[in-house]
Amino acid sequence: MNNILSQLAEILEQRKTQAADQSYVASLYQKGLDTILKKIGEEATETVIAAKNANSEQLIYEMADLWFHCLVLLAYQNAHPDQILGELQRRLGLSGLTEKAQRNQSS
Amino acid sequence: MNNILSQLAEILEQRKTQAADQSYVASLYQKGLDTILKKIGEEATETVIAAKNANSEQLIYEMADLWFHCLVLLAYQNAHPDQILGELQRRLGLSGLTEKAQRNQSS
Amino acid sequence: MNNILSQLAEILEQRKTQAADQSYVASLYQKGLDTILKKIGEEATETVIAAKNANSEQLIYEMADLWFHCLVLLAYQNAHPDQILGELQRRLGLSGLTEKAQRNQSS
Amino acid sequence: MNNILSQLAEILEQRKTQAADQSYVASLYQKGLDTILKKIGEEATETVIAAKNANSEQLIYEMADLWFHCLVLLAYQNAHPDQILGELQRRLGLSGLTEKAQRNQSS
Repeated sequence: MNNILSQLAEILEQRKTQAADQSYVASLYQKGLDTILKKIGEEATETVIAAKNANSEQLIYEMADLWFHCLVLLAYQNAHPDQILGELQRRLGLSGLTEKAQRNQSS
Repeated sequence: MNNILSQLAEILEQRKTQAADQSYVASLYQKGLDTILKKIGEEATETVIAAKNANSEQLIYEMADLWFHCLVLLAYQNAHPDQILGELQRRLGLSGLTEKAQRNQSS
Repeated sequence: MNNILSQLAEILEQRKTQAADQSYVASLYQKGLDTILKKIGEEATETVIAAKNANSEQLIYEMADLWFHCLVLLAYQNAHPDQILGELQRRLGLSGLTEKAQRNQSS
Repeated sequence: MNNILSQLAEILEQRKTQAADQSYVASLYQKGLDTILKKIGEEATETVIAAKNANSEQLIYEMADLWFHCLVLLAYQNAHPDQILGELQRRLGLSGLTEKAQRNQSS
């Protein structure tokens, strides 16, 4: 199950050579950054709504949508989900999540 | 690198037995669902802002924050990141991302 | 210019008796709360994007969209924009905006 | 009640000459655009949460917060709430809200 993010990243990379009318992702690339970012705002709101509905199936679905569009954004910016995982790992290494708490106290 | 999400999920589970003043995550659990959801809205907005700043380091940092708080939400709801990966995999299986496109046309 | 919010509130009230296929607002009412809330998340993100684009025309347009959907939400909940203005006025009365600052320090 | 937005706009203009440690708004100006935009994302999410809580008092409070930070953004960008009201009025003039519906069909 763990290679799914990398597999998706590869597919999203391939979508860059497709025509916009051939795939949803290619159409997002063509519409550009603002459209992709708008989707992230939308899916985050839908995740919040699903959680408030206490509907766990809907929550999984909407959060998957949110992560999916995050992956699209990463591909569009020529970044890779491993960079997100690496950043999360870096925080893990800092004696659990203390770094996180420290950062929040100072912000 | 690929087990990071599962490792994080395990740590977030352990945080449920800590006191709120001992860790940032335990304090989020104590404050409850609305506080966690508010963080997801915040971090999504910060991801959008980082992308508009064309600052790739900031983008990775803010998206990691967004995913981190998604993982906190999943833990709080007794769900697991594998369910998100499973949903993404399910879409992968549907002949690339055509299912995604279909869904969007009908919404 | 100042009665526009009240005029809009009246029109939005009238839309409650229309069929969903007759007006955009009536279709929002029919789709229900979650759809209206999703629009608020969308328009807030679009306001953020417009501001980052340093496009003042786009900013006015998107913020008007955000306020418009706020008015739709108020109508749907049988509330009135005067309640928002009243709350803003209440804060004004508290020696400028000091109350606001106080609240934020304690949150 | 109708001049509240203009009164607030005037106060927010005056805040530009204050020191950041003297008022909440002056501190927002000093922190700059991204901080103000982050607040808009936050308050929009809190508005969504309040509506899902079916808590009308909380909804008025959070929506007032959202509008307040919209006014701060307008002041920061040297714009005025009358421009938002003017845009809303322009739509009103287009035979009710039909223009709005048309725009949405084409987007």
